[in-house]
Amino acid sequence: MTRGTVAPEISSRVRSIPPSPIRGLAPLAEAAKARGIHVIHLNIGQPDLPPPPGVAAALAAAATQPPVYTASQGIPQLLDAWARYYERIGLAISPEQVVATGGASEALSLAVLATTDPGDRILVPEPFYAPYYGILAAAGVELVPIPAPERYGPVTPQAIQERLGPRTRGILLCSPANPTGTLYERDQFAAIAELAREHGLFFYSDETYRELVFRGSRAASALEMPGLEQHVIVIDSVSKRFNACGLRIGALISRNPDVIAAAVSLAELRLSLPLPAQLAAAAALEAPATYVAEVVTTYRRRRDAALAALARLPGVHVVPPDGALYLVAELPVDDAAHFAAWLLTDFTHHGETVMLAPLSGFFATPGAGRNAVRLALVQPEPVLEHAAELLGEALARYSGRTT
Amino acid sequence: MTRGTVAPEISSRVRSIPPSPIRGLAPLAEAAKARGIHVIHLNIGQPDLPPPPGVAAALAAAATQPPVYTASQGIPQLLDAWARYYERIGLAISPEQVVATGGASEALSLAVLATTDPGDRILVPEPFYAPYYGILAAAGVELVPIPAPERYGPVTPQAIQERLGPRTRGILLCSPANPTGTLYERDQFAAIAELAREHGLFFYSDETYRELVFRGSRAASALEMPGLEQHVIVIDSVSKRFNACGLRIGALISRNPDVIAAAVSLAELRLSLPLPAQLAAAAALEAPATYVAEVVTTYRRRRDAALAALARLPGVHVVPPDGALYLVAELPVDDAAHFAAWLLTDFTHHGETVMLAPLSGFFATPGAGRNAVRLALVQPEPVLEHAAELLGEALARYSGRTT
Repeated sequence: MTRGTVAPEISSRVRSIPPSPIRGLAPLAEAAKARGIHVIHLNIGQPDLPPPPGVAAALAAAATQPPVYTASQGIPQLLDAWARYYERIGLAISPEQVVATGGASEALSLAVLATTDPGDRILVPEPFYAPYYGILAAAGVELVPIPAPERYGPVTPQAIQERLGPRTRGILLCSPANPTGTLYERDQFAAIAELAREHGLFFYSDETYRELVFRGSRAASALEMPGLEQHVIVIDSVSKRFNACGLRIGALISRNPDVIAAAVSLAELRLSLPLPAQLAAAAALEAPATYVAEVVTTYRRRRDAALAALARLPGVHVVPPDGALYLVAELPVDDAAHFAAWLLTDFTHHGETVMLAPLSGFFATPGAGRNAVRLALVQPEPVLEHAAELLGEALARYSGRTT
Repeated sequence: MTRGTVAPEISSRVRSIPPSPIRGLAPLAEAAKARGIHVIHLNIGQPDLPPPPGVAAALAAAATQPPVYTASQGIPQLLDAWARYYERIGLAISPEQVVATGGASEALSLAVLATTDPGDRILVPEPFYAPYYGILAAAGVELVPIPAPERYGPVTPQAIQERLGPRTRGILLCSPANPTGTLYERDQFAAIAELAREHGLFFYSDETYRELVFRGSRAASALEMPGLEQHVIVIDSVSKRFNACGLRIGALISRNPDVIAAAVSLAELRLSLPLPAQLAAAAALEAPATYVAEVVTTYRRRRDAALAALARLPGVHVVPPDGALYLVAELPVDDAAHFAAWLLTDFTHHGETVMLAPLSGFFATPGAGRNAVRLALVQPEPVLEHAAELLGEALARYSGRTT
């Protein structure tokens, strides 16, 4: 490298992070709005539902407290609230087994940094929550995709086993999954747990959407797998089930004390989480079970309405999600990313358009997900039905239509 | 590695992070308090002063807003507030040159990840803010210490030049410095800036304590160095000058658009910062100049009181700080870390003791700082004077005394 006249350059690891499939279209949406177009946002998992009433009360109370540093692991009130929440859903977790984090994102970041070194690999079923790729890349860790089976079902232990190597440190699963709503049954979880045990792997389980399921009361948890106490690291969040994304509070949960100690030593580097958000998240976690049940009922109604409306569109195939708050639609287009951009740049119908997330951004395998989009169920049924009509109108006009 | 029966292990990078010199003594302090002992905390830079009144008002207003995701770079209101704050102190920074972060810690983390790959090196004058080491280690980056000159003065360009190598990506400075209060004059900054330009290095400038100086109105800023727009990344925070640590809001500032784009793409991985804290930090940044001036006056009085009180203790040598809110005292003891622990486990005087931060934790060079401690000026003068008396009493009784 010639030094002296050359400006320093940004890192390779950052250049390897693909642009966010959600955020990349944002400037196009802003431009559409500037032209007076009404954009229906189905592109981002930003719930439109109100958080439990305790959240606003806790924030108001926090306003009178001095904004001081708190314990890096989280304030005792928040760790206790997590433990009580887990007790209510039938999982024995003590406050010492919880590290409060800045959302599920920081929980995964701490989990990865605590358990991997640069050059290590983590296996992840495709499609996956898009930021996984960058969170691993920032840590110098390679995301090894496990291609999705037909219809985005759970991956098989066989598919995992085939991709194990000497640098494989673990398996990262999300159930129910963002973006597909795929739900792993207990026996499917157990088979993967067995692999983790056999090969000495970490089992990173993103359970952000745990209760948001359309059969049963909650998804199977990696914390229920016997003999896997040293392997399981659960990623959790108050964002979705309590509609409190903007608090940015999640948690890393593990029964492995070394993992907790490592995560705390990493958390100490950022000293603490904001106090007001911690107090508000503790209040959210104390919400009655009826609160989450109503959230699930709302998403079930929306899913059913969206499925029915999309079924009316020729050439559109939808995979009915078993949980979470998204659905994946395969569209009769050459390139769904191009189509999603076109919706914002070229299409309007009575002054309206719709914003979708191209599914390609949720894959590491080049070319995968090219004909699909993710829709977030973050609008009331009439809006979802109306958005489906707009989508039908757009598909009828789009020049890259394939069928 | 034998797999199957072996539990997976935590990462080497985490094991390389030394225990926090501040947090490591915390259990001993808790135990002392449980025995009924009053512990005077001089160990942590947690200001005891109130934040600007606008902070509480902003938090109260935020309580009524839904807790939603916001822009990853920060809400426009906060980015604008940073830009206006910079304008008031005479530095031209636009909102587009700011990335709002979770404290100075996340700002440094983003700066390092944006500009380094695993195996790279960053030069850091010793002693340094202890978490620097772990923040770099988590990123797989080696902290190369530049040993402190006599009396903890600014390091020379010569000392930096001697340690440059092919993997050196930049120089990380803090002025005024935590823990020593060392202040780099403009010409000292300029000489280092020249080195950065000549060798194509990033100049990471931690300016958290910018206005907290005991001569002049503020410290020299790396942003004032001509021709260094592509090299300078400033780490900033509302924590200290606005007494708002618990909001956990800082900023990364750069005029290099590639650095900003890289930092934003990393910030997108954690989606956003908490909304209430962003609104409150924006309010803090609008505090009148008289607010910060009063903070500085308070710390100057405290520094002078502490210097006078410590000067009365035989064998204790204090380096008068030129800024920040700490001072380093060299003690006549064999091992200041042991002494600091002993203060909590074995010493009391009329039911009281004092908690200090051993300086060894602020060094990467083994054995350095062994006879010194950092005191934080986070107590009123009478308490600082009383704490100095307690320290004198303790030194008189301590068996590891050297002079």
